[in-house]
Amino acid sequence: MIEILRLSHRPVRDARMTTHIGLTSRAFLANKMWYSGVRDREMESSVFKVAEQFGGNFEISYIQDPLELINQKRKEDFTIVHLTMYGKDFKENLAKIKDKNILIVIGGEKVEPEFYHESDYNFSVTNQPISELSALAVFLHELLDGKELNDNFSGKLKVIGQERGKKVIKP
Amino acid sequence: MIEILRLSHRPVRDARMTTHIGLTSRAFLANKMWYSGVRDREMESSVFKVAEQFGGNFEISYIQDPLELINQKRKEDFTIVHLTMYGKDFKENLAKIKDKNILIVIGGEKVEPEFYHESDYNFSVTNQPISELSALAVFLHELLDGKELNDNFSGKLKVIGQERGKKVIKP
Repeated sequence: MIEILRLSHRPVRDARMTTHIGLTSRAFLANKMWYSGVRDREMESSVFKVAEQFGGNFEISYIQDPLELINQKRKEDFTIVHLTMYGKDFKENLAKIKDKNILIVIGGEKVEPEFYHESDYNFSVTNQPISELSALAVFLHELLDGKELNDNFSGKLKVIGQERGKKVIKP
Repeated sequence: MIEILRLSHRPVRDARMTTHIGLTSRAFLANKMWYSGVRDREMESSVFKVAEQFGGNFEISYIQDPLELINQKRKEDFTIVHLTMYGKDFKENLAKIKDKNILIVIGGEKVEPEFYHESDYNFSVTNQPISELSALAVFLHELLDGKELNDNFSGKLKVIGQERGKKVIKP
């Protein structure tokens, strides 16, 4: 089970970013995205619509208290992995978390010190400023050994990759 | 040489997304990001400031006519790779473009058909709706064989990865 916790969402500023985090999480085989900050039903509905069209059982839920969620998930035997540019190289530590239930925590403009302390691991995808979204994508890609590149979904719509142009079928 | 062309930037809506595309491009060892759409000096300056602090020679330039840039780059012997959810699996085709000079084209809310036709390759990172940013990150990660995870920069600031908390030094 892979779940994502996206911290401190702000409806206008982060609308596209959080939507893309949701879409990437879904396509990279996560089961659920939680998000804190300000509730944003429009963003939820953008992600939901894609999941409805392209398939899968991806869920998205707003959560008021993200530290409480972390505690709850730990009780459910999840390993808490916080992605941050200040953490240890994720690639060297991947073996520690393979095949576990994981809650992946990503910021948020500013991440409070509690999240560094409450996480089981603070991992970085490069120690450079990049983006919570690129960090998440590369992390999931490696965690899954590229399994997300296979044809994993059966939805109402399916894209058939083309050399030029677009082909979408209704299977 | 790896360069990025980000299409159709809109200052408010895409501000964070394009900034993160710039930061990811830099950290994933691209040399330059071009962008079209509306000029946005604030976004340019956010990316530039990071490059100035954390090192490297990453450049960013606004371009009015992206198709003209593609033609120019082709004359300079670049291979044009458009990332799109409608394209062929990138992983199966990576050998065709390794060690070439590459211009990577990414959308933009809506990408005009010309870009599909003018590109040498249309490649997908999953045939699912994800994000131009996650597609770019995973594509560069594979293209570089993970080389971006090494310590590639010498800047004014350097992050030393920690198990907890943050450590930034001035080398």
